[in-house]
Amino acid sequence: MPRQEIIDAVKKYADPFRVTKGNDFRLKHFDPGDTLGLKMSKKDAGKLLERGSEWLALEQDILYAQDSWAVLLIFQAMDAAGKDGTIKHVMSRVNPQGCDVVSFKPPSADELSHDFLWRYAMQVPRRGRIGIFNRSYYEEALVVRVHQDLLKAQMIPPEFVRKSIWDERLADIANFENYLARQGVIIIKFYLNLSFDEQKKRFLRRLDRPEKNWKFSASDVRDRRYWDDYMKAYEEVIRHTASETAPWYVVPADHKWFTRLIVAAAIVEAVERLDLRYPEVTPEQKKDLAAARKELEQGK
Amino acid sequence: MPRQEIIDAVKKYADPFRVTKGNDFRLKHFDPGDTLGLKMSKKDAGKLLERGSEWLALEQDILYAQDSWAVLLIFQAMDAAGKDGTIKHVMSRVNPQGCDVVSFKPPSADELSHDFLWRYAMQVPRRGRIGIFNRSYYEEALVVRVHQDLLKAQMIPPEFVRKSIWDERLADIANFENYLARQGVIIIKFYLNLSFDEQKKRFLRRLDRPEKNWKFSASDVRDRRYWDDYMKAYEEVIRHTASETAPWYVVPADHKWFTRLIVAAAIVEAVERLDLRYPEVTPEQKKDLAAARKELEQGK
Repeated sequence: MPRQEIIDAVKKYADPFRVTKGNDFRLKHFDPGDTLGLKMSKKDAGKLLERGSEWLALEQDILYAQDSWAVLLIFQAMDAAGKDGTIKHVMSRVNPQGCDVVSFKPPSADELSHDFLWRYAMQVPRRGRIGIFNRSYYEEALVVRVHQDLLKAQMIPPEFVRKSIWDERLADIANFENYLARQGVIIIKFYLNLSFDEQKKRFLRRLDRPEKNWKFSASDVRDRRYWDDYMKAYEEVIRHTASETAPWYVVPADHKWFTRLIVAAAIVEAVERLDLRYPEVTPEQKKDLAAARKELEQGK
Repeated sequence: MPRQEIIDAVKKYADPFRVTKGNDFRLKHFDPGDTLGLKMSKKDAGKLLERGSEWLALEQDILYAQDSWAVLLIFQAMDAAGKDGTIKHVMSRVNPQGCDVVSFKPPSADELSHDFLWRYAMQVPRRGRIGIFNRSYYEEALVVRVHQDLLKAQMIPPEFVRKSIWDERLADIANFENYLARQGVIIIKFYLNLSFDEQKKRFLRRLDRPEKNWKFSASDVRDRRYWDDYMKAYEEVIRHTASETAPWYVVPADHKWFTRLIVAAAIVEAVERLDLRYPEVTPEQKKDLAAARKELEQGK
């Protein structure tokens, strides 16, 4: 399939959910239950996703061989929105040697004693790799904004803990992403947009099924009380950090099959745009290769 | 000595060499042989420096106890300008537990495969510490700018290796420092301003004295051919990255005793401005302390 056709095919899915300018962004314009009117059996959706994953695996191989671009995928969402499942299904075919998933847990004392980007910056993927952040530095303007006692543990000098701190953090993050983009890091950010009601259903399912119990913690439910605060914080995040070089995708998350399809489409589109090719072999290298073949064939 | 008196005393030395606005900066306005008309015996200069170092040690102890601010000292210079000796003499009295010196050598293959700030950002001092960068991310717009074949090894996608790359790097560095400042990192940057002639003398002395031979490498002399390119690059660096929050000190470096004095004065001034105090003990903590005393005195 020619590259342009692929891009056109995936654009249809990904573009409606892409945010590159924050000014007018409102979360309420995005429906968590949206499926673009698509009706699909689970099986058909699975097949389509599989094709996307296979394509990604091919592209990732070239990315690795080129050793110049890096891809950073950021996943943010409320609990039970399907981050883990999406990562698992979309990246299922990709060679783990070229792909690192980093899950960010609450920071350690050591991490808290550094500037807030420190532990994330260290994990930015190197050239040729795909890096996946399961949660990210955006938590510094989400959970920390909603639960401001977390900020105290960061020991920032009081004069910098001021009203403008959240706008400043988001500006610092935008600058950081702009810097990374210029280093050759393709940044794609996903907000899995789950509804309040669907979260409740999924939590109840986790409680009903013993094999899902480990995924449930009582504090997850407690955070539902702060739902509106979180939504406001997410809106601010997207308003201040959506850009052409580091777009946000606000992906409907009430239907898992659709979430995965959109995420796969967005990644395929971004990677296809790079128009990656295997590195060309120079005439000199060709001579070396011919010599190597000769040596092998002469039985040494 | 009251704080304000100390600040006034050190300001006299430090302020003439402080650059906080880059627009009009010209390196030629700064004389490498300057001593502010000060005439001092080696012994007197040594005594004065010792007082500064002792003061720094006291302040560093409070910095460590407070665990909120960090101090980042950046040293940049041409070879033989006295970076190592200055760091050694000015920081001689500081507790090594609260002070880390990082010398940046040419990057490894692993470091080259990351964004250029990566290896430096990792070493930014944590709260309560003084971090010293002996060379720094500024090399990315100095040696890499003068010897542009070094840029090739960074494997940046060709579309970003454009005419504006140096201005972009310096803007990215300025943003990074601005971010760090907001996290509570006090940044002070020193350019040890050595003259072309004095460098020659020092190189010859290194060749004359066997115990200094290890400090000499033939490539140091080769770099003298690019002296003017380096001076231009340093001028651009300072023009684009001098600010109130991250000032440059252009320190005369032809007289070592004077270099050390000015560096010490600049650090003392910056740290004094913080008006550091030991953390206050809360009434509750006082009760705990009293209880601990009682337990100890009762012989347990």
